[in-house]
Amino acid sequence: MSFNPPSIDQVLALRVNAGLDALAETERFAAASPDVVEAVVEGAGQFAAGEWAPLNRLGDTEGARLVDGKVVLPEGFAKAYSDFVEAGWNSISAPEAFGGQDLPQSLAVAVMECMGTANMAFSLLPMLTVGAIEALIHHGSESQQATYLARIVSGEWSGTMNLTEPQAGSDVGALRSTAVPVTEGPHAGKYRIAGQKIFITWGEHDLAENIVHLVLARTPGAPAGSRGISLFVVPKYHVEADGTPGARNDLKVVSLEHKLGIHASPTCVMSYGDNGECIGELVGAENEGMRCMFTMMNNARINVGAQGVQIAERAMQQAMAYANERVQSARAGSADKAPVAIVEHPDVRRTLLRMRALTEGGRALLYYATGQLDRGGMGDSAAQQRAELLVPLVKAWCTDLGVEVASLGIQVHGGMGFIEETGAAQHYRDARIAPIYEGTNGIQAADLVTRKLGMEQGGVLFALMDEIAAEGSAPLQDLAQGCKATAERFIAGSLDDRLAASVPFLEACAVAVAGWQLERQVAALPALDLSASFTKRKQVVARYFAQHIVPAAMGALAQAARGADLLYDLTSEELTA
Amino acid sequence: MSFNPPSIDQVLALRVNAGLDALAETERFAAASPDVVEAVVEGAGQFAAGEWAPLNRLGDTEGARLVDGKVVLPEGFAKAYSDFVEAGWNSISAPEAFGGQDLPQSLAVAVMECMGTANMAFSLLPMLTVGAIEALIHHGSESQQATYLARIVSGEWSGTMNLTEPQAGSDVGALRSTAVPVTEGPHAGKYRIAGQKIFITWGEHDLAENIVHLVLARTPGAPAGSRGISLFVVPKYHVEADGTPGARNDLKVVSLEHKLGIHASPTCVMSYGDNGECIGELVGAENEGMRCMFTMMNNARINVGAQGVQIAERAMQQAMAYANERVQSARAGSADKAPVAIVEHPDVRRTLLRMRALTEGGRALLYYATGQLDRGGMGDSAAQQRAELLVPLVKAWCTDLGVEVASLGIQVHGGMGFIEETGAAQHYRDARIAPIYEGTNGIQAADLVTRKLGMEQGGVLFALMDEIAAEGSAPLQDLAQGCKATAERFIAGSLDDRLAASVPFLEACAVAVAGWQLERQVAALPALDLSASFTKRKQVVARYFAQHIVPAAMGALAQAARGADLLYDLTSEELTA
Repeated sequence: MSFNPPSIDQVLALRVNAGLDALAETERFAAASPDVVEAVVEGAGQFAAGEWAPLNRLGDTEGARLVDGKVVLPEGFAKAYSDFVEAGWNSISAPEAFGGQDLPQSLAVAVMECMGTANMAFSLLPMLTVGAIEALIHHGSESQQATYLARIVSGEWSGTMNLTEPQAGSDVGALRSTAVPVTEGPHAGKYRIAGQKIFITWGEHDLAENIVHLVLARTPGAPAGSRGISLFVVPKYHVEADGTPGARNDLKVVSLEHKLGIHASPTCVMSYGDNGECIGELVGAENEGMRCMFTMMNNARINVGAQGVQIAERAMQQAMAYANERVQSARAGSADKAPVAIVEHPDVRRTLLRMRALTEGGRALLYYATGQLDRGGMGDSAAQQRAELLVPLVKAWCTDLGVEVASLGIQVHGGMGFIEETGAAQHYRDARIAPIYEGTNGIQAADLVTRKLGMEQGGVLFALMDEIAAEGSAPLQDLAQGCKATAERFIAGSLDDRLAASVPFLEACAVAVAGWQLERQVAALPALDLSASFTKRKQVVARYFAQHIVPAAMGALAQAARGADLLYDLTSEELTA
Repeated sequence: MSFNPPSIDQVLALRVNAGLDALAETERFAAASPDVVEAVVEGAGQFAAGEWAPLNRLGDTEGARLVDGKVVLPEGFAKAYSDFVEAGWNSISAPEAFGGQDLPQSLAVAVMECMGTANMAFSLLPMLTVGAIEALIHHGSESQQATYLARIVSGEWSGTMNLTEPQAGSDVGALRSTAVPVTEGPHAGKYRIAGQKIFITWGEHDLAENIVHLVLARTPGAPAGSRGISLFVVPKYHVEADGTPGARNDLKVVSLEHKLGIHASPTCVMSYGDNGECIGELVGAENEGMRCMFTMMNNARINVGAQGVQIAERAMQQAMAYANERVQSARAGSADKAPVAIVEHPDVRRTLLRMRALTEGGRALLYYATGQLDRGGMGDSAAQQRAELLVPLVKAWCTDLGVEVASLGIQVHGGMGFIEETGAAQHYRDARIAPIYEGTNGIQAADLVTRKLGMEQGGVLFALMDEIAAEGSAPLQDLAQGCKATAERFIAGSLDDRLAASVPFLEACAVAVAGWQLERQVAALPALDLSASFTKRKQVVARYFAQHIVPAAMGALAQAARGADLLYDLTSEELTA
């Protein structure tokens, strides 16, 4: 199933929701003119459709395999990756000083959207690399930046994030890997790293010349919990004085996980320091590892949220193509008894329209958040706070809708949807990881009702909802007012109530913002030179969203209003017996 | 992951929702005393947990394979099936005249629930056999009944349903297989069958001595469409005069589908009459095939709906066990900073309670429907009509909740949920077929708003909703009144509006009935001798259902109220471009 890049909708979201037109008027982002934005989005879309999409099913059926301690990818991945690096798609938003193009992060997300829609498992390779770039830009020493950054920015070297250990999943602070200072010899001043890490995405492969692992570990005598964690850069190959990869470091992949989806992405169990000779360098200060991770977290969560939109787009395109092709039964109530394409049947059509409303609503929310992040990065603290508020909405709601749309995509296919060769099932399997990794959606919701709601004593959320209530259509006004009122009760109420209500509350907030941003797109259309049919479709999609997605969010709000009622009426034993 | 049969909840649902206590007071079902019901449910649960559940993961990983034209099942399936047959679990509700136990169908569904919760893919073998039994009981000639029924009832022989062809999925009337009368020779009076059928569940295997295929085909000169279809019984092996399997009939499996889930269930492409010698017998009259299928449809749809409850139960048990075991992070806001089992965290607990409320709500609805079917079978036409109304609710809502609960089960496991070895992912894959087969859930919803709503000009649905509005708690009253008002508007409105709104309307109706039946369980508890903790849990579950599942259904109703608004504002090209 080929993939048709949704360039027009992406550019619209970049201009209207991310507000790149206004950003291009600043000195910092003067390069991001509408022409450049369009050229980047279209170019990335063409590249992704042409080179990455054709590998999507192959990646699923063959998957990444571990052969003699090496990770082997299916035929074609190596070339598709080196072409990606050569074309410069990895370096959109990195600083020029390190070979980047210094464009807004919004545009980098759009490029990544193209890659992920084409091939979600593959896109995790550059996505993790983005995290390594961020960590080193914000916390690396000059020497570390000089050693690593240019090559990671280009994509010649890739990056990984090593947080999770078997006993330390959502609770990163429980990790036990160690880092002991080296006091003499050639590595004096560095650290000996030891420990096992799990769920390391693209932890080992040979598409890049070197892999730069960012590893969380504890130094001797470090405080317990998350306050005693430090961040280390641990290259697969030591870097020679001339900057090229040298001897192998003491780290290796132990095994690959056998997963439900994203089979082309090697999910590694990594072992560091089996021979006591794994050398890493401290990034930032000792015991500041969690703070360093937090600076990467916004982008990482936005990128995972984007994956929800990506898989939804892909699943939707496939379902629409099938619904146009598949002829079955006459239209009910029609005088004409000839069978029609199933897109004509009301419930199939409703399903497709729902898929589109969710996908485009997710995209509008996504780019609204990235635009706020871009402004936050320029020192706009109100935008930064709004972005922080939006991050959990993007991560959780977009990944949930990715799963739903992929599931609806199977349903549109009927029996054929359950057959693996059709490809719809792969989206359903791939999509399922996104609500889990980079902080489960439950953790996103907890973040929303604690840290994010707490900003300005609720003021950041109130201001957002006030804006929606002032600008949105009637259903959105009701929803935004309901979200604000619920938040006010949360602040006055108990932590248990808030946490118990957090998931439905997040859904309600996300739908309010997404619906509002869709309406902003509609409002902006007259000034943009888009086709009449695109304009009409967007109007219908925004209205469908308000009429059909918003009422369900009102139901979620009603659930949120119950807080922790009933939740602890049963003991754990009584509930789970 | 082992499986703990939910016998107490099943018996409660059978007594209260199916009303077996009252049924046991009739002459027809005097045998179904509370003691017998309990013994059957517990016995089936033990058997399923002991013999079928351990094969569930093996069936997934090895799957059914086609080797030299034969379907091979993993080690252990043959014995587990013959033990099932020997123990008499296949014959619960069949007539005594054919070796059955003449017990209510509700009890047969409960036995099947045990098997399906243990091993969904495997349970399709007896489930399809039930269809063959029904077809022959209702439409078979005396000689056909004598030839086939006793052995199918026992399970020594299995049955299949052959409807689908590549161009004829949901539109069964489009099928092209042929049946030509044999006018001379040993098969005179029979038919030569020819054609290819797809998606034939357990179409070929060697666990049973013979396979009795029920095949839809067209006789020469038959009218076009569904009015020209006839039903044939086509055995894998011709039956000798002494009743034993003889020579092979001219039919064969061509290939097996490679599916998302239920890997142990061979989904066959079947070819009939490659050599012009496939012999079948007409069941019922010529051109009456669709009518014959309709008599089987209620049971088949109920049994598929039951699969939703089954997979939900299994996924829930696994998630609860994991949530009790997995220790991670201290409870938020607690003075005690020691990590706790994740079941203690509010959002995990909410998720588990939701899983339980959906599962038990589904079960309450399911057995309410089977109890009405049992009464309908005894000539109670009001109960029969109510059962007919309930069938699409059971099939669609229960299978949708099966997918949701399986997905939540993955989420509770975090990263481990995405790893196949954990087993949670299998439920998510297996569950996904149930909303598709036996009439997609979209077709169920269409059936609800056309044929079923049409019964007594809406009177059957109105009476049900009136009853709920009179008996249910406040949230259920609102929902039931809303369903009735929506139905009234449907009847006065257009077919497009009804069909466009059918899926959310079905959800609202199903939630109303399920919530009401859960409250009936609570009301019945004081008179039953169940443990205090079970009683307390059921009270909490029923209240949670009313407070959290019902509000979302109100949201669905709000969507239903919009009818076909917007749906055809775009052309198919505009929507799908």
